[in-house]
Amino acid sequence: MHTNDALAHTLAWIAVDWGSSNLRAWALDHHDQVIAEASSDKGMLSLKPDEYEAELRRLVSPWLPDSGQIEVMICGMAGARQGWLEAAYLPVPTALDQLSQGAVMPRLTDTQLRVHLLPGLSQTRSATHPFDVMRGEETQLAGLVADTPFFSGLACLPGTHAKWATLEAGTVTQFTTYLTGELYQLLANQSVLKHSVGSDDLNDPACCEAFIAAVSEIHAAPETFSSRLFELRAQDLLDGRLPSGNARAAMLSARLSGLAIGLELTGACRISAANEPVTLIGNQALCQRYKMALNAVGFQARHMDGDAAVLAGLCLAHQALTA
Amino acid sequence: MHTNDALAHTLAWIAVDWGSSNLRAWALDHHDQVIAEASSDKGMLSLKPDEYEAELRRLVSPWLPDSGQIEVMICGMAGARQGWLEAAYLPVPTALDQLSQGAVMPRLTDTQLRVHLLPGLSQTRSATHPFDVMRGEETQLAGLVADTPFFSGLACLPGTHAKWATLEAGTVTQFTTYLTGELYQLLANQSVLKHSVGSDDLNDPACCEAFIAAVSEIHAAPETFSSRLFELRAQDLLDGRLPSGNARAAMLSARLSGLAIGLELTGACRISAANEPVTLIGNQALCQRYKMALNAVGFQARHMDGDAAVLAGLCLAHQALTA
Repeated sequence: MHTNDALAHTLAWIAVDWGSSNLRAWALDHHDQVIAEASSDKGMLSLKPDEYEAELRRLVSPWLPDSGQIEVMICGMAGARQGWLEAAYLPVPTALDQLSQGAVMPRLTDTQLRVHLLPGLSQTRSATHPFDVMRGEETQLAGLVADTPFFSGLACLPGTHAKWATLEAGTVTQFTTYLTGELYQLLANQSVLKHSVGSDDLNDPACCEAFIAAVSEIHAAPETFSSRLFELRAQDLLDGRLPSGNARAAMLSARLSGLAIGLELTGACRISAANEPVTLIGNQALCQRYKMALNAVGFQARHMDGDAAVLAGLCLAHQALTA
Repeated sequence: MHTNDALAHTLAWIAVDWGSSNLRAWALDHHDQVIAEASSDKGMLSLKPDEYEAELRRLVSPWLPDSGQIEVMICGMAGARQGWLEAAYLPVPTALDQLSQGAVMPRLTDTQLRVHLLPGLSQTRSATHPFDVMRGEETQLAGLVADTPFFSGLACLPGTHAKWATLEAGTVTQFTTYLTGELYQLLANQSVLKHSVGSDDLNDPACCEAFIAAVSEIHAAPETFSSRLFELRAQDLLDGRLPSGNARAAMLSARLSGLAIGLELTGACRISAANEPVTLIGNQALCQRYKMALNAVGFQARHMDGDAAVLAGLCLAHQALTA
């Protein structure tokens, strides 16, 4: 373990992922190795603009040397209009090793910290692409490029608002957001389906089978999405072959998840040649679920850890800043 | 105006549409003409089984003669398992002039009223049809058959859970429920889109155009549904051509409505030959919205008033009972 003195001596710069509902900070040495971490639940939604600096100092002050400026690279909602200071969206196409060119620097009362808020990406509607925005995910994509320089291919970041991005030689050329996670949560918790669904476990063969079947059905007929939603309720009332209790609710949940993810994949995979593997960036469990769904409709997938990606992206931005 | 004495003298039977959140009752004469109406907000969700009789008597007692039994035909959720007494679903195919054969009679403390609770319809999953249930809408469909004996064709009942039924010579052969209305309400009121949408008015040309465009886009590519949902939010952030204030929220609402209804129509119209007009049963404003959407994707529509339909269906059931 480092003592704080040793840490302050080794500290080179600080990386922060500042989202809507929480933030995480990493202390890094001159080799971009993590030497300390901290986190808090003070996300954008619970902070006024003039409260960010104090919260940042509260988290990182144990790491700081007595003197000398420290660069702080921040991605995520802290750079939104309703955050600390707006870092305007960069329009695609955007080279992911150039994100720091769109960074803004809020004025701090304490000048030891030099804060850079990274921008998000935006896309204007065209014949082939929708209006779209991302903020935070671009840094995870930059992490993919840090990991695989000049990466080309399709990357998916599952979540409340799942993002699919097409990269060409390290540049985002287009992206599309799917409301999948939010749709699932609303339907599972607030619709008539709440009486029928519980929580699923795709390690259970019956859940896994229900999930895959739902993905396949929606892939074959996406226009049946809203009728298959109601069918979950009717199936709960009528299907004598379903198990009872928690196993029943778990199977119907797996089916609901398969419908929501299947609809997303069917839309997203239109823009990709099959057999090109999709890079999934995010937590292990959710990416494993997406991988099963992708495999069911004929796509391969590989996984990059979401935390590792955001940190690698912040490192790339820091390198560009200091290059 | 009838006095109560004159009314009691003329009363032949009573019709009731008893839903989840309210009920409506009609007094009818021997020619099935309405001679009085009453309503209350005591729907299934606010009543225990032993409270239905008192609520019914409270509403209809001013109509009753001093003696003589009165038949009461009731459709809707009062016949659900969690209602007054369960009238088990009739499996399709079901001839709509035979609904009263599945009616059940709850035991009443006051024997002047003879109550018949009509059944709903159910459908087991097959290669072509989903599991499905309806309760209440079957009586509106019976009203269509009362209006057009041996009706064949496709009927749509828009609403929270929109129903599409295929009729052949007065018999429901299959039906499918779409979660459209509930999906719209959840998205408009509880999702990230709540910041962008308001209430629309399809008499406004800009709203009408946004609605039709959304219907057409989803009809062409239903797999884009969940990405087009998020696009509404991005469009609100990025689209400089949108009007501001209420006009902006109205246009985005019209677009959300078009996406939800468009997805439903794309699924439902798979089972119908184009050029066969769809019979829309429901309130004027919602049916007009559906008619615009149907026209946009090449279908014709005609309208039957929802209140008239349920009453005609209850009359048909009463006639079958007394035939």
